[in-house]
Amino acid sequence: MAAVNIQPITVNTTIFARRLAMSFTQQQLEKHQTLWNQMTSHRFLLETRDGKIADDIFAQWMKQDYLFVRAAIPFISALVPKGPLHHWKPHSDVVAMLNKEMDLFEERANAVGVSFEGVQPWFINHAYIQFLMATAYTASYPEAYTLLYTAEKAYHDAWLVVKEGLDPQSKWYPFVENWASEEFGQYVNYLQGELDAMASDVGKAEHQRMEDIFELTVKYEISFWEMAYTGAQWPGIQS
Amino acid sequence: MAAVNIQPITVNTTIFARRLAMSFTQQQLEKHQTLWNQMTSHRFLLETRDGKIADDIFAQWMKQDYLFVRAAIPFISALVPKGPLHHWKPHSDVVAMLNKEMDLFEERANAVGVSFEGVQPWFINHAYIQFLMATAYTASYPEAYTLLYTAEKAYHDAWLVVKEGLDPQSKWYPFVENWASEEFGQYVNYLQGELDAMASDVGKAEHQRMEDIFELTVKYEISFWEMAYTGAQWPGIQS
Amino acid sequence: MAAVNIQPITVNTTIFARRLAMSFTQQQLEKHQTLWNQMTSHRFLLETRDGKIADDIFAQWMKQDYLFVRAAIPFISALVPKGPLHHWKPHSDVVAMLNKEMDLFEERANAVGVSFEGVQPWFINHAYIQFLMATAYTASYPEAYTLLYTAEKAYHDAWLVVKEGLDPQSKWYPFVENWASEEFGQYVNYLQGELDAMASDVGKAEHQRMEDIFELTVKYEISFWEMAYTGAQWPGIQS
Amino acid sequence: MAAVNIQPITVNTTIFARRLAMSFTQQQLEKHQTLWNQMTSHRFLLETRDGKIADDIFAQWMKQDYLFVRAAIPFISALVPKGPLHHWKPHSDVVAMLNKEMDLFEERANAVGVSFEGVQPWFINHAYIQFLMATAYTASYPEAYTLLYTAEKAYHDAWLVVKEGLDPQSKWYPFVENWASEEFGQYVNYLQGELDAMASDVGKAEHQRMEDIFELTVKYEISFWEMAYTGAQWPGIQS
Repeated sequence: MAAVNIQPITVNTTIFARRLAMSFTQQQLEKHQTLWNQMTSHRFLLETRDGKIADDIFAQWMKQDYLFVRAAIPFISALVPKGPLHHWKPHSDVVAMLNKEMDLFEERANAVGVSFEGVQPWFINHAYIQFLMATAYTASYPEAYTLLYTAEKAYHDAWLVVKEGLDPQSKWYPFVENWASEEFGQYVNYLQGELDAMASDVGKAEHQRMEDIFELTVKYEISFWEMAYTGAQWPGIQS
Repeated sequence: MAAVNIQPITVNTTIFARRLAMSFTQQQLEKHQTLWNQMTSHRFLLETRDGKIADDIFAQWMKQDYLFVRAAIPFISALVPKGPLHHWKPHSDVVAMLNKEMDLFEERANAVGVSFEGVQPWFINHAYIQFLMATAYTASYPEAYTLLYTAEKAYHDAWLVVKEGLDPQSKWYPFVENWASEEFGQYVNYLQGELDAMASDVGKAEHQRMEDIFELTVKYEISFWEMAYTGAQWPGIQS
Repeated sequence: MAAVNIQPITVNTTIFARRLAMSFTQQQLEKHQTLWNQMTSHRFLLETRDGKIADDIFAQWMKQDYLFVRAAIPFISALVPKGPLHHWKPHSDVVAMLNKEMDLFEERANAVGVSFEGVQPWFINHAYIQFLMATAYTASYPEAYTLLYTAEKAYHDAWLVVKEGLDPQSKWYPFVENWASEEFGQYVNYLQGELDAMASDVGKAEHQRMEDIFELTVKYEISFWEMAYTGAQWPGIQS
Repeated sequence: MAAVNIQPITVNTTIFARRLAMSFTQQQLEKHQTLWNQMTSHRFLLETRDGKIADDIFAQWMKQDYLFVRAAIPFISALVPKGPLHHWKPHSDVVAMLNKEMDLFEERANAVGVSFEGVQPWFINHAYIQFLMATAYTASYPEAYTLLYTAEKAYHDAWLVVKEGLDPQSKWYPFVENWASEEFGQYVNYLQGELDAMASDVGKAEHQRMEDIFELTVKYEISFWEMAYTGAQWPGIQS
């Protein structure tokens, strides 16, 4: 009879021990596996992977994501004054990377006859950009860094899915080459290592806020893909 | 023949002269009349005015707007360091007013058996709050003040619509008494006067950004009512 | 022989145990006792306590501190968006308190024929105000709260020194009544309790930065008294 | 008799017309010529120009300015989110330039046996850095840009003075080559053009605040040279 009691205790201890051994990012990725899977299996990604995405749908993603990538530059810049000295150079490198991403968007847009002239952020894009900036200013550095990591990790994983099936001759393959690349993967690993190190040296209250930001960021990512696919505009507004 | 040419010129001159004589807020309210009407005729407001709003729909507005009113406190606070000395005291008064609004929400929620315990902002609410904070930090003071004015003016006008029909005995009438009151109207007039004065002393580029923020704020307001009515959650997420 | 080894260990253990039992603020006040004493024994305070301070020297302190108290309003306001919900109301109360302090300055200045018209911050005052605002924006909330606590504690202790000797009929006694009061002491105790609670839940790196800000704030306080006494202007500038 | 009245009017009109034709930066440089001359004729610069500066005095400038140049990186970064799109790339280039300046400091320090290990900012340096950050966050973009321009223009002009006399074989000549170079001069000209363009499109109140920041920045620059020369520490603190 005692064994009945002991068994669940044993199991709990194991889980507890495993949790303890897990880094912050491992914990969050495991805890939000369902959300993460919703993101990586979004029809936008699967149709792109399978070469079935409509050109005009891909174009609306390109237009919106171009604006989002551009908005990441002030976000990264706003992190610098709050971050440790040894993060300043990496942040500069990210800004340079974002400038190269914008070149990629412009080159691809040009190649397929899409123009970014006068493009405005749609509601969900506008909201996500506000989330970036509000977090950069009001949250602590480890909290804002959680947003950065989660968004970059999400992009890496999303484009790894597309890579699984997309024809390397596809006109969209350069995006795979950018975000599913080993180089980008190393950058995400670097962010992960830095974030996990910070997470192991914050208090309980801040740790909880970091968890909240991880979850919020995955949600914004999913909503962004949904907007790209459906063309969702401002809720409740007839234009 | 000359008269044919002169006539449109005369008309244009009149329009031009009228524009010149119009304040910033008059210009914006006229320019975005269609959007403004979409807001003041939102079914949430009309059904509330007509005493037909479902209790659970009104409750979901109460929960979300409670969080939004609370989030306005850090927004107002963030304006103080950027604003002129003579705005500091009025901003303190607004924070006191927001605290009283929260009391009103709590009193009404209590009266009708609604609890704010553990309520989280839905997507559109979260987005709007991020817009407040991102604007407070990255925009100029006159730009951020435009957001403040537009949101308060929108609330005043929205509840003036409800006031036209709602039975003063209604359990929702205290909200009418708050935002449709003469006192609140005077506060909105004060904001309008200050904003118009600032708008007359900014450069062209900043004036344009103020116009953009006026329009964005009306859109966020409409989307907020839409969320309150439809219960819209995070786009693309199955929970 | 063993006793020789045991003895120092015993002593160390005692010190270590005492340190462990000490709160953050106790630790800092003990560690920087020399600096703290330099502040509380500054000739400005001792001469004021002994009724020997020259009127024009006291007047230059009044003018500069009036500006500093005023500058504390945007500092406190900038803390709100970064702080926890239960700190918002106390911060509002501090702003109200600062407005009352400004009234006190104006009343006293009036009573003794001093005018604040067109007064500009001298170098050290300007620098201290920049330190407030830069910290509010770039440091974490517990770090910025350390500045707030240290400055308020410094003022309480400074005026407690003056209280020891100043004639209650003195024209400067109302300042004693303000900062050496039991009420102000309770406010400082409240800040101390909140700060110690936060300090016990931050990581090592943040704890170190909090210690640095404590020390910096005491230094700025001393330099402020020095400026008030000597009338020090901008270093190296002949006017 | 009328001529008596007319004459001063004529003179005033000429001055007025000249003022109108002058750009913001020309106006400020003319208005604060005395302060500017105090800066460019500071004994630190003249002794360096004449090869008479003591090595340990030059070393204390190197240590402090190294910290200041480093602190300019978060300052520039904090400007990005508030600035127009076409300033982002130039700001990135400035960060790259600052990193190169730090390399220059390290190389020179190495060459002459000076170490930056554990160097802390002295009071005036700490204050100036706080002024950078507080301005970046609380002031408008044109105001913060005024600080950037004035500090860079001050450095260019200061080192042009040194260039007039310093032996190109001097161990300090690489600093002349950096800030007195034509390339750096072109960068200052670029900042001047951008600032003048912004200044011509702001309101009166903001224009006045820009003028205040110009003057404050020159004062901080002079005080910095004074600190470098005299080794001034925290006012009123005995260590």
